Amino acid sequence: MSTTIQLSALPDVPMIEPGDDLAGVLIEAIGRAGIRPRDQDVLVLAQKIVSKSEGRYVSLDEIVPTPRALDLAEKVGKDPRMVELILRESTEVIRHRPGVLVVEHRLGFVMANAGIDQSNIPHPQNGESALLLPEDPDASCARIKARLDAEFGVNLGIVINDSFGRPWRNGVVGVALGAAGLPSVIDMIGEADLFGRKMRVTEIAFADEIAAAASMVMGQTDAGRPAIHIRGLAWNAPSTDARALLRPRQIDMFR
Amino acid sequence: MSTTIQLSALPDVPMIEPGDDLAGVLIEAIGRAGIRPRDQDVLVLAQKIVSKSEGRYVSLDEIVPTPRALDLAEKVGKDPRMVELILRESTEVIRHRPGVLVVEHRLGFVMANAGIDQSNIPHPQNGESALLLPEDPDASCARIKARLDAEFGVNLGIVINDSFGRPWRNGVVGVALGAAGLPSVIDMIGEADLFGRKMRVTEIAFADEIAAAASMVMGQTDAGRPAIHIRGLAWNAPSTDARALLRPRQIDMFR
Repeated sequence: MSTTIQLSALPDVPMIEPGDDLAGVLIEAIGRAGIRPRDQDVLVLAQKIVSKSEGRYVSLDEIVPTPRALDLAEKVGKDPRMVELILRESTEVIRHRPGVLVVEHRLGFVMANAGIDQSNIPHPQNGESALLLPEDPDASCARIKARLDAEFGVNLGIVINDSFGRPWRNGVVGVALGAAGLPSVIDMIGEADLFGRKMRVTEIAFADEIAAAASMVMGQTDAGRPAIHIRGLAWNAPSTDARALLRPRQIDMFR
Repeated sequence: MSTTIQLSALPDVPMIEPGDDLAGVLIEAIGRAGIRPRDQDVLVLAQKIVSKSEGRYVSLDEIVPTPRALDLAEKVGKDPRMVELILRESTEVIRHRPGVLVVEHRLGFVMANAGIDQSNIPHPQNGESALLLPEDPDASCARIKARLDAEFGVNLGIVINDSFGRPWRNGVVGVALGAAGLPSVIDMIGEADLFGRKMRVTEIAFADEIAAAASMVMGQTDAGRPAIHIRGLAWNAPSTDARALLRPRQIDMFR
């Protein structure tokens, strides 16, 4: 791997609306930035712009909470319509307490509120909307990668990131929701360390480290930096999508 | 925050031995790299070189396991001397099963094996050694920062990172064990989003995102990249050490 890595926010990415051609927007922004993409350059996209381009808005005013959602909403102190939406997007409630609702999203992510967010999105007058995760973030990455690879004649890595809370530690960090064109997990089994001893650490969550690094550049409030270009990474391992990052329930000790 | 961030591995950092003047080694490596440090440059150091410079080696041959360690070692299938060491470094066993031992380290980190490692360290002939975490990683960062700040006449951020596994997700990511000169957690409470709505996300684990980004450059097997220089980050929040990243036990839902 290269020993110098550069992360740059694509400049002037416009507000994304449902139906926008996100790949086209990115191609224009890359051109404006004067970047000439190379093999193994990586583009990290904030979940929000992908969800917006895919029109993943829901009007809360049209949501009728079930009794289960009403009950849970009271326990966690959240809007029952939001809780209803969260339950619809989830397969299981993992933990809850006032102010916190951790679920397993139907895509397998264990996360707060099924990733449904109400910040940095437009709301109708006298109404409220919410934004769901992309329908299939790995597929979104693959589609965007296909367009960009064809446009620039290169082999790019694409990651969609989001900010997740963690057990035991304060604060959120960037995490990969989707990936294409790079190994989401790099297996180190059998590689020798500097003293010829076999490594104990088996896997590096490469796409999550990329997602966290990009998140560090994106910040949180400024939706003007939703796309980060990374140059200097290199890898030999085969590409795996972000599903490879999900630990199977049977071997997870924290549910 | 700047929109371009560069991470570079300091070149040719030598193998670190107990008693080595790590700050001096870093000052030399920074000079060799032709870097002229600036305010808010960040240096991320692999836990291993800090532990080595602090002589945190333990000879396993001198460890006599207690009955409790023998019992636990059989359950997890690990060397009883390693389990004894792990227990000595810990305040609580959080989870265990064959091959996995997750504890709360005396410093508050919830992590596998109390961070004790046997890879990338020298072992005596016919013997085995292990390397503990630094005695007080925040204090180590503060000491190194003081030396480097004085040498270069700037105000640097220093982070010590390590690779942690996580619940729910495969693979390890870089995490901050210690920090000085930067906000380990950045509080976003009350900041307005792009549409003037109040942000729900309260805290960003800034030092952990920095640690993960540096880990992406360090790799795992190659101990030749244990120090990463980062330029382009900027922050206004007051400095807090890495203890700020530890969620108080009383409000943690996953122990």
